[in-house]
Amino acid sequence: MGSFKGHILPGSFFLIMGFWWSTKSILKYVCKKQMRACHLDSKTLFHRMEILEGITLICMALTGIVGEQFISGGPYLILYKEGQWNQLTGWHHCTMYFFFGLVGVANILCFTISPLPVSLIKLILSNAFFVETFIFHNHTHGREMLDIFVHQMLVLVSFVTGLLAFMEFLMRNNVLLELLRTSLILLQGSWFWQIGFVLYPPSGGPAWDLNDHDNIMFLAICFCWHYALSYIIIGVDYAFVTWLVKTRLRKLCSSELGLLKNAEREHESEEEM
Amino acid sequence: MGSFKGHILPGSFFLIMGFWWSTKSILKYVCKKQMRACHLDSKTLFHRMEILEGITLICMALTGIVGEQFISGGPYLILYKEGQWNQLTGWHHCTMYFFFGLVGVANILCFTISPLPVSLIKLILSNAFFVETFIFHNHTHGREMLDIFVHQMLVLVSFVTGLLAFMEFLMRNNVLLELLRTSLILLQGSWFWQIGFVLYPPSGGPAWDLNDHDNIMFLAICFCWHYALSYIIIGVDYAFVTWLVKTRLRKLCSSELGLLKNAEREHESEEEM
Amino acid sequence: MGSFKGHILPGSFFLIMGFWWSTKSILKYVCKKQMRACHLDSKTLFHRMEILEGITLICMALTGIVGEQFISGGPYLILYKEGQWNQLTGWHHCTMYFFFGLVGVANILCFTISPLPVSLIKLILSNAFFVETFIFHNHTHGREMLDIFVHQMLVLVSFVTGLLAFMEFLMRNNVLLELLRTSLILLQGSWFWQIGFVLYPPSGGPAWDLNDHDNIMFLAICFCWHYALSYIIIGVDYAFVTWLVKTRLRKLCSSELGLLKNAEREHESEEEM
Amino acid sequence: MGSFKGHILPGSFFLIMGFWWSTKSILKYVCKKQMRACHLDSKTLFHRMEILEGITLICMALTGIVGEQFISGGPYLILYKEGQWNQLTGWHHCTMYFFFGLVGVANILCFTISPLPVSLIKLILSNAFFVETFIFHNHTHGREMLDIFVHQMLVLVSFVTGLLAFMEFLMRNNVLLELLRTSLILLQGSWFWQIGFVLYPPSGGPAWDLNDHDNIMFLAICFCWHYALSYIIIGVDYAFVTWLVKTRLRKLCSSELGLLKNAEREHESEEEM
Repeated sequence: MGSFKGHILPGSFFLIMGFWWSTKSILKYVCKKQMRACHLDSKTLFHRMEILEGITLICMALTGIVGEQFISGGPYLILYKEGQWNQLTGWHHCTMYFFFGLVGVANILCFTISPLPVSLIKLILSNAFFVETFIFHNHTHGREMLDIFVHQMLVLVSFVTGLLAFMEFLMRNNVLLELLRTSLILLQGSWFWQIGFVLYPPSGGPAWDLNDHDNIMFLAICFCWHYALSYIIIGVDYAFVTWLVKTRLRKLCSSELGLLKNAEREHESEEEM
Repeated sequence: MGSFKGHILPGSFFLIMGFWWSTKSILKYVCKKQMRACHLDSKTLFHRMEILEGITLICMALTGIVGEQFISGGPYLILYKEGQWNQLTGWHHCTMYFFFGLVGVANILCFTISPLPVSLIKLILSNAFFVETFIFHNHTHGREMLDIFVHQMLVLVSFVTGLLAFMEFLMRNNVLLELLRTSLILLQGSWFWQIGFVLYPPSGGPAWDLNDHDNIMFLAICFCWHYALSYIIIGVDYAFVTWLVKTRLRKLCSSELGLLKNAEREHESEEEM
Repeated sequence: MGSFKGHILPGSFFLIMGFWWSTKSILKYVCKKQMRACHLDSKTLFHRMEILEGITLICMALTGIVGEQFISGGPYLILYKEGQWNQLTGWHHCTMYFFFGLVGVANILCFTISPLPVSLIKLILSNAFFVETFIFHNHTHGREMLDIFVHQMLVLVSFVTGLLAFMEFLMRNNVLLELLRTSLILLQGSWFWQIGFVLYPPSGGPAWDLNDHDNIMFLAICFCWHYALSYIIIGVDYAFVTWLVKTRLRKLCSSELGLLKNAEREHESEEEM
Repeated sequence: MGSFKGHILPGSFFLIMGFWWSTKSILKYVCKKQMRACHLDSKTLFHRMEILEGITLICMALTGIVGEQFISGGPYLILYKEGQWNQLTGWHHCTMYFFFGLVGVANILCFTISPLPVSLIKLILSNAFFVETFIFHNHTHGREMLDIFVHQMLVLVSFVTGLLAFMEFLMRNNVLLELLRTSLILLQGSWFWQIGFVLYPPSGGPAWDLNDHDNIMFLAICFCWHYALSYIIIGVDYAFVTWLVKTRLRKLCSSELGLLKNAEREHESEEEM
């Protein structure tokens, strides 16, 4: 919805999922590196986590859809009323939530029905972002300059995220590609917050001048700073997870690890040259 | 042709071919998974099917071309008449049908002349979609807003389909990529129907207001819903084909399969992690 | 130059090179398939052909540059005259010819200096097409509608050709990709002829109306028909080269071939399934 | 900053780094080819060079940022002053320098902390170029035609450089791809110089007419000539480095090399066919 809360909600969803996905990618990568030394049985754990992730995504999508439809002044599931379309922007948002809900469904299906290929999740995720791109592109007709600009940034970031998810679908297990995608999801999340503060200042203070081009030039660099922030979040997350895994593993299998670690480190540095 | 029937015909062709191609892809994928257990001789069957597919495509293209040319008020194969071009939009449509007919020709050639690489079919298919994109892009000059919008959606979907067919040409045997392409072909088919109902309402009721921007915003989400529908069609198709193959195979080689299936399932789930 | 001859010349160059490259690709592909049976020493021959090709390309580029500069009314190597730029469109054309000349230089260098990778040729070729795209994009300022349209088609076709050459640079030895590129080079060649006939009708008849939108719609399908023509040229070329190679090889090593051919054919059809 | 020096500084940085990176790529490629014969211990050397490179990049970025902020008339770290944004173009430039500084940080991190994958550097580099593209795209609002055009060229070249760096991230060790990227970095460097001379002529002579379209047409070909120049720089560099490596290696291990070289050359020429 065109309100402060209506932008904070999806923003928070993207921030949570971006943070979670980046943590999961780092965890898998670090574990895989360390596990060579000490094989823990974590497959079942990851399976359950994926299904839980799917359920969370579906809940988020449902929250979004219900929020859009039944907020005071919302469309209340009525599409056509009194000879004209009823609150189409609300329906736009619902459609986007719906496609992100499908990602959750794909998540659950792929980890419960065995013959489905796991890369289906990435494909559906990529489609969800492309649908978001498409809808936001057709969303801002007749609005003011700054309003259009901040939504175009969403179009840009969701398009690139969709492309990256599609690339992950084609080539699996590239941790940097996954982290790049999650950095863009974090960017999108924080950008939703930024939009909320720009278009509907909650402090009750004076709104931004929507036709001042200087505001656009500021928001353009602001967008880059948000991106730098998402770098920092992922960097700190990486450092923390690496430290955590190393500490916990040392306790579990301290003797084995000690011997193998040095050999491994050399091996890796050779590989990466 | 600019008529209800002129949009229903290609729409139906796309729906039929999209459904057929998705069924074929799923069938091949499911068979390949099951065949490890029980080798049936299906190569000759698939060969014949491909040639039949080629003939069907050529018939469809011919039907389209003949329909465009010899409908009452059509160009009747006359390109230039009385100092000006004669019914160029009809010729546009014929050119598109012609390039889809070439896909049928490629289909037949590749499965009768052995030294031709099979990926040629995908290349010609991709070219047919790009030609469609190109022609629709130069097709709507001077029309009204909504008319341009619904055709731009066709440009978008045929461009993406062309890209996906080109990707299949480069990397073969990715079932999800094939299903993604067929889902877009289904989308295009149902969108042709939608265009028919929007621009030439068959019920004789009042036409849509072609300059109302709300209609564009509705059709934008409508496009996404069509896409969700094509997901559902393919999902149901997948479930049905899987069930069918499993049941029929069980009858044919019940003893063997029973032993091997459990081992296989474990093997697959490992692969896909 | 803005004249009939100035479009016929590059058009013929593209047609010749397109035909030559497609023949070379087909020859290499067919030979490679047949050579398994009967190893002829053709490496030196191919080497010489490449160097000859390079020399031809340089000669073409020089012809073009000299023609552009020293035609009556040309810039005569003067860039800045009497306080303004002198005949910049002529200089544009020269720059394009220059970059195609570089392809010839790369051809010669790669086959005389051994440590240079052969894929350099494809890279330079791709760059030449991108430079052409870039220059044509900045070439038609202030001209009339139809003039801009026919040059935009050149921009489109040279951009796609550049992309395809770049893809060949990344993945070598895909015969269909090479034929696709050469089909687009043939298209560009015949389109240059078309431009010549549209903008500077040699028959002295009345020129085309440059502001009639119907002409654009006709030229859009005309462009597709040119493309269909380049399909046919390559198809006939393929059939002819295959027939030639088979006949000549049969004479040279008839006994061996006869035995191996059947076995091979089966092997191939298996591979391509 | 909008001044002659403000364009010469980044231009020189790009020229230096472009030249250095191309030399490094050629050196690695030539060494790898020659090293088969004579294994020198150069790994530690390359490691130190990378860290030095990182420090240089950070210094350059800091110089740029300090220069932008504390030049007379600069923003002096004040973003918002007297009810309006303070010198946003200066802040734009600082943001770009910052992201290039991050490349230096990534360089140092990847060669000091072992578990980080080396391809991270390419990813961050690619991001830096995309950020540059994004900012320059939002940088020229309300300026004059020629000013916009020369900055659009920067947008184009930095976007393509970003794409190429991203491709290097995906597929490592393609020397031609690296050289292509460095050629574009050189192009960007020399184009910054060109912009300086066009927009702020240091000779004090009359400025260029910013609204004359002929100037755009000249600068379009000028851009291509700059690119041809970067070809020549890299070509000469390649010849020089190859000669240097061969001469030095001959001294170090003349006997071994003499025997192996001929065998190797034949082997390579076979590989590259």
